[in-house]
Amino acid sequence: MTIQMFEKPLGMRDDFPFIAKKKAELRAKGTSIMQGSGYDLLQTPTLEYYETIGKISAIPDNALFKLLDSQGETLVLRPDMTSPIARVAASKLLKEKMPVRLGYYSNVFRAQKREGGRPAEFEQMGVELIGDDSLYADAEVIILASTILKELNVESGRVVIGHTQLLQLILKDFGLDNSQIDIVRSALVSKNSVRFEQLATELLDDASKAAAFKGLVTTSSLEDWKPYIDASNEEQAALYGEMLKLQTIIQRNGLSEAITYDLSFTSHMTYYTGLVFEFYGAGSGFPLGNGGRYDGLMKQFGLHVGATGFGLRVDRLLEVIAPDREAEPHILILFSEETEELAHEQAQELRTNGSRVTLQYAPAVKALEEFSALFSEVRRLEGATNG
Amino acid sequence: MTIQMFEKPLGMRDDFPFIAKKKAELRAKGTSIMQGSGYDLLQTPTLEYYETIGKISAIPDNALFKLLDSQGETLVLRPDMTSPIARVAASKLLKEKMPVRLGYYSNVFRAQKREGGRPAEFEQMGVELIGDDSLYADAEVIILASTILKELNVESGRVVIGHTQLLQLILKDFGLDNSQIDIVRSALVSKNSVRFEQLATELLDDASKAAAFKGLVTTSSLEDWKPYIDASNEEQAALYGEMLKLQTIIQRNGLSEAITYDLSFTSHMTYYTGLVFEFYGAGSGFPLGNGGRYDGLMKQFGLHVGATGFGLRVDRLLEVIAPDREAEPHILILFSEETEELAHEQAQELRTNGSRVTLQYAPAVKALEEFSALFSEVRRLEGATNG
Repeated sequence: MTIQMFEKPLGMRDDFPFIAKKKAELRAKGTSIMQGSGYDLLQTPTLEYYETIGKISAIPDNALFKLLDSQGETLVLRPDMTSPIARVAASKLLKEKMPVRLGYYSNVFRAQKREGGRPAEFEQMGVELIGDDSLYADAEVIILASTILKELNVESGRVVIGHTQLLQLILKDFGLDNSQIDIVRSALVSKNSVRFEQLATELLDDASKAAAFKGLVTTSSLEDWKPYIDASNEEQAALYGEMLKLQTIIQRNGLSEAITYDLSFTSHMTYYTGLVFEFYGAGSGFPLGNGGRYDGLMKQFGLHVGATGFGLRVDRLLEVIAPDREAEPHILILFSEETEELAHEQAQELRTNGSRVTLQYAPAVKALEEFSALFSEVRRLEGATNG
Repeated sequence: MTIQMFEKPLGMRDDFPFIAKKKAELRAKGTSIMQGSGYDLLQTPTLEYYETIGKISAIPDNALFKLLDSQGETLVLRPDMTSPIARVAASKLLKEKMPVRLGYYSNVFRAQKREGGRPAEFEQMGVELIGDDSLYADAEVIILASTILKELNVESGRVVIGHTQLLQLILKDFGLDNSQIDIVRSALVSKNSVRFEQLATELLDDASKAAAFKGLVTTSSLEDWKPYIDASNEEQAALYGEMLKLQTIIQRNGLSEAITYDLSFTSHMTYYTGLVFEFYGAGSGFPLGNGGRYDGLMKQFGLHVGATGFGLRVDRLLEVIAPDREAEPHILILFSEETEELAHEQAQELRTNGSRVTLQYAPAVKALEEFSALFSEVRRLEGATNG
């Protein structure tokens, strides 16, 4: 294969000015909301050891970008932000300040096997709330993500909430063993409903049981969850009780219409142990982001504390946010050798007053008319000697 | 070697909240100034083909992070931003809008051989002005960088300006051949004054010539350059004339005191062909950034146009900017199950008024006193039922 001068690696993109500017605005708005809610920004390195972050991250091995350092150790380009932030939170400096609230916007990397439109590098913006195992922590991050979506003017922002642990218990109640549960979960993760219906018939002899099983994927409220809960089972009753409490908090924050409680919703991220959620908006079939509780991950860093958080995908947010292609005021001042001083003075004054001003030596421009057309206002000082 | 759970690869750093926040502020201020002067933000991918960006970048091969993609092609983590932006500027979309003004803030990567305190990843903030070969373009980027340093409150911001082409001509006038010139330049690039003085004696028989040669490194004004210029040589006279014009523009912008014209100043970046410059501030012996004219680089992308630009190192800027460690107002509201609703209401009101508020379910905090000490104000709503 011969690489042309302008080519980029598979799945790698340039963000041209319009997109780069939009992203910068999203970032500024998102982080300002995070900071206002007490989250501190954190930045972790692009490269991490495979032995630590690579293995823990729950991203399939073949989606990791790997390289060797000069010591012969395997490095990875960070595939997610949750594991690196967990690593930092477990460090001496922060673990004594629990609960810690950390926010980030960072690129993450996923190697692609073929050119299929999927980015190999994309930006995530999110938070991790580490050291609080209460339900209020889960409520806080869901409300925070919803607030960000609302402030970014995402139309019909919606949250789907599930609970991996409760789902696990209920699947057990259907008489499934662990390997059968894994198969069912994998069909649910890939949202493969045909496969899921097949499994209902294959795995359950009793027709009414199979019908109830199929009904899991149509649950959309906690009321719908009720028939599946074994009230005599303390664990199930307690978890369901927590869900009801969560619902109350969410309702009070005026978000109830935007929430779907889907008992069948689960995640491919194996470190999620309890509540899981995903965010959607009108205009994209793909989730805008996701999150959940990952107490298990913190244990791998030697900390027995609760943790919850979310990440939003900036590229997908851009797709659903109403574009604002209005040309921004931008003044062009064209000058010649004689008017250079005057041009500088005018530019300085305009910029001090908040205007965006490009100063350009006119003889250096090949296509003056086309170039001038890029601006909302053009002042020609060429040749003039006194403005 | 056994990798501990908390270790990071050689030269990789975490930016803890205080630093991450400072960097975000620098970035916001810097890019706002760039945009105000007509520069558009651009973001290029972290990974590029070795064949294109890796080979062109002027960073030594052993400082590149390399990896293989699934097609067996060699990729590099971008070692600088100038080459990727040149790649984009030469693309169809932009090359018809010349001159283009592009700005960026991005991490770049340099592999380190040993732990010596040098970062393997650091952030650069800068601009490229492509498609304008006039002196005014050089003046524009120098003034822009100086404005950014000033607005960031860098104390005693200083610019050192040299001219690689003029230096080359003058070294030739001393009777040096190309390989001797390379040796001299390499001593100048590494600022090795002992080696430079040695070379003066070794390469020049004439004692008065050797003395003049040694004087190159003490030039600090264009007046100091004059004795080295052969006025009868058209090329030298023209380049020196341009330098005088540059000085006039810079003086008019009130920057003259901050400028050193050092005829011996040159760069290891081989793509710089004309004017080169470096930025300094009180409090750091390392340059805060550098830049120059790189018309030659654009030719490699098939564009015969002029280009100039600069990059500032955000990590070094942080070191020289007066720290502002004043604790920012940050209110903590502690709540219990009974006061959760009230706490949310109070938080919402305070946040709407611009306050930074952390809401915390008190029973989830292990060390309540230590945790509370992290905030400037604490409201305890635990147990209270009516605020």
